[in-house]
Amino acid sequence: MLKLTGTFIDEITHDIPSQNWGETEWRREFKLYKQIGIDTVIIIRASYQDKCIFPVKSGGDFLPLRDDLAQMFLDLAGEVGLDLYWGTFDSGVYWYRNTWWKEVEFNKRLLDEVGEKYTSHPAFKGWYLCHETGSNSSHIIELFNYIGGHCKQIRDLPLLISPFPMGSKQFAQGATFTLEESLDHWDKIFEATHEVVDTCAFQDGQIQYRELPEFLQGVKALGDKHGITIWSNVESFDRDMPIKFPPADFRYLNLKMEAASKTAEKIITFEFAHFLSPFSSYPSAHNMFRRYCERHGLDADSVIAAASG
Amino acid sequence: MLKLTGTFIDEITHDIPSQNWGETEWRREFKLYKQIGIDTVIIIRASYQDKCIFPVKSGGDFLPLRDDLAQMFLDLAGEVGLDLYWGTFDSGVYWYRNTWWKEVEFNKRLLDEVGEKYTSHPAFKGWYLCHETGSNSSHIIELFNYIGGHCKQIRDLPLLISPFPMGSKQFAQGATFTLEESLDHWDKIFEATHEVVDTCAFQDGQIQYRELPEFLQGVKALGDKHGITIWSNVESFDRDMPIKFPPADFRYLNLKMEAASKTAEKIITFEFAHFLSPFSSYPSAHNMFRRYCERHGLDADSVIAAASG
Amino acid sequence: MLKLTGTFIDEITHDIPSQNWGETEWRREFKLYKQIGIDTVIIIRASYQDKCIFPVKSGGDFLPLRDDLAQMFLDLAGEVGLDLYWGTFDSGVYWYRNTWWKEVEFNKRLLDEVGEKYTSHPAFKGWYLCHETGSNSSHIIELFNYIGGHCKQIRDLPLLISPFPMGSKQFAQGATFTLEESLDHWDKIFEATHEVVDTCAFQDGQIQYRELPEFLQGVKALGDKHGITIWSNVESFDRDMPIKFPPADFRYLNLKMEAASKTAEKIITFEFAHFLSPFSSYPSAHNMFRRYCERHGLDADSVIAAASG
Repeated sequence: MLKLTGTFIDEITHDIPSQNWGETEWRREFKLYKQIGIDTVIIIRASYQDKCIFPVKSGGDFLPLRDDLAQMFLDLAGEVGLDLYWGTFDSGVYWYRNTWWKEVEFNKRLLDEVGEKYTSHPAFKGWYLCHETGSNSSHIIELFNYIGGHCKQIRDLPLLISPFPMGSKQFAQGATFTLEESLDHWDKIFEATHEVVDTCAFQDGQIQYRELPEFLQGVKALGDKHGITIWSNVESFDRDMPIKFPPADFRYLNLKMEAASKTAEKIITFEFAHFLSPFSSYPSAHNMFRRYCERHGLDADSVIAAASG
Repeated sequence: MLKLTGTFIDEITHDIPSQNWGETEWRREFKLYKQIGIDTVIIIRASYQDKCIFPVKSGGDFLPLRDDLAQMFLDLAGEVGLDLYWGTFDSGVYWYRNTWWKEVEFNKRLLDEVGEKYTSHPAFKGWYLCHETGSNSSHIIELFNYIGGHCKQIRDLPLLISPFPMGSKQFAQGATFTLEESLDHWDKIFEATHEVVDTCAFQDGQIQYRELPEFLQGVKALGDKHGITIWSNVESFDRDMPIKFPPADFRYLNLKMEAASKTAEKIITFEFAHFLSPFSSYPSAHNMFRRYCERHGLDADSVIAAASG
Repeated sequence: MLKLTGTFIDEITHDIPSQNWGETEWRREFKLYKQIGIDTVIIIRASYQDKCIFPVKSGGDFLPLRDDLAQMFLDLAGEVGLDLYWGTFDSGVYWYRNTWWKEVEFNKRLLDEVGEKYTSHPAFKGWYLCHETGSNSSHIIELFNYIGGHCKQIRDLPLLISPFPMGSKQFAQGATFTLEESLDHWDKIFEATHEVVDTCAFQDGQIQYRELPEFLQGVKALGDKHGITIWSNVESFDRDMPIKFPPADFRYLNLKMEAASKTAEKIITFEFAHFLSPFSSYPSAHNMFRRYCERHGLDADSVIAAASG
């Protein structure tokens, strides 16, 4: 069975509360990643609405925040020896109003600023297109091609997406897709974007656990057909609880990882720091980390000590 | 005033996030129970929907989970010296669609497997019927009699139920019951099921605190009338908060325990591990444990040390 | 930039789960406040619905709770050297049914009991009117004048209110106010209540971060016009998350404090114990405390040690 070897970083939080970590806490976390075999961190998005993880110079109505988390994450990744994928920009406005070309322009301007400031950093190793979708809608093909294309013009690096299944844990009856509908939509999207998209890591928490193996196999076949590498984004939080969202129950996380190991080249998770870390603000994550270590032959106490030291 | 002497165990979680405890954490917890006078643990249900706490051999569409928590709980209860009540099976399907006879068949098949594997364990001391209701509806009499009857055929042990009042903290205006309506419904249910049901521990969090004493007295009178022993299930979580559900405020838990002590032979809680344990994933539970110890003359530090040692 | 120098205390919780602190935990917390420059604690309300922080002798349908948190908070404030503002009573009934005169009578009776028991305590330094509003409605002028007037007859001390902006983070489209509407309403309220109200500390979490500076400046001008001192209630919890409510992200708390520092004489927060304390039940609050200390030149470890000692 594969281990987790990548994780998102969620510091422009959309729906997950901040842990208020500073450089000390992130260094400890990255050192832990190195210890347990996580080699890749993926910034989920660089901005959301009027918030950005670095102080924007190229205009736009961003809040006057001073912290440069982009630089911090890159420096820590370089220091520890992790690859960093950079998440693009979600205006929270244009896309939702279906003015996709403005979302592209918004991204191009900000990506140029990223190119000037960050892409030459030795830890900068890939792009992540932050616009998530479950279907061939919202002009997702244009967003992927034009934003992804601009990323690659700035620096030609592997490009990752992480879409979601239109499953019954997230969508109301009538809005869900059958397996066939999902694969039909993604066949068309992959067909139209495979020159830009290198890797696809589907989220896995929207569908029922019992539906997952077949879904993953279908996605894997589409990846093979279109030359897109298949990873899996095994979600480490729980979508079944009234609290949105607590850490997962390890029994089901393990079940999902067993399924993903059969089709994915690499397993990443959204996301380790909140939901699986021994340093998380959620104590049940500390326990899940111990269960994870037991399952994968890691000595929890010694990796925690090494990361903290 | 009575102390808490029993607690549910909630490892097929319906709406409470997992704490991701393993055998080490559960042993520590059970040792704590022994220290503070909890002599009974009650598995709230052995399965829910397609999840089960043990690997099912007798068919059905269960997820391929490998952990045998049933064996672990029985062994730990035996090791520490606790009585274990076994919770029955909630398909999450048949009952809700009012095909009650399928729920009975579903339970019978799985209970037979329980009989082969677990009932001879020395810690196996009772049955808990997991189908909760607040009224004489959903064919609850048939479920209690046929499932409960089958339990007793497998092994004739005390049988517990834990229904709920149709109170205004859970139900919308119009769906709530007056005290008289509740007692009328339960008079009929007790009349029809008292040959199977030995003990009834009403939940207490759905009604207003001020309504509780009268409700408990009414239930006690019904128990006396029908020869059913009355316990009380004093909920240790809070139903009044936007977060569903945090640990209770000890002031109100204490108020409820004072009320329950006047009518119940034994007080149990849903449930200690999340909401009252010094080892809980909810830090406010750690503080509630200290308040509980202060109120009941227990030395928190020494019982924690003894359990952890 | 101003530091936080006051905090609410929320022990008749309306929507924030209890931390189950006892005297030991509150003494430690108050000692921390003294260390970090918080000189004022404000009881958010003395009662809500049928709950009260002290055992009521003057009638009414209060739950038979025995704890006297009022005396405890006053004694601890006196011991440590903090000023305590007393929050008035929210029946949770009369006001919501627009029978404002009953809310006033309800308060007068209970305030007389407060006068007999608590107002002569040396730490009793002010009044807080607990009826929160965003607009000139719900007979707020009558509530402020009649309840506030009665407070001052009992003991003539500074009187604080903490209203809220009708912002888009709390109210649906159509129910929000423009800046002009808000200022128009508060011009009228201040005009009608300035003889009773000494200080106004607006809440700041209902509006968007980018709207805050202009709102605070408008409020400051109104305060100057009517002779009301302007503080700011910088909320330390997050209103943007599905979980209602986690600790804030320090980046945005800091942004709000920078804005508030330009117009407010003093910054208070709702509230330190849950959302910013190193002793909070929310671990992310521990981290936020470290970020706060870094920003304000405090040594987190030493103030924690001094408070715990």
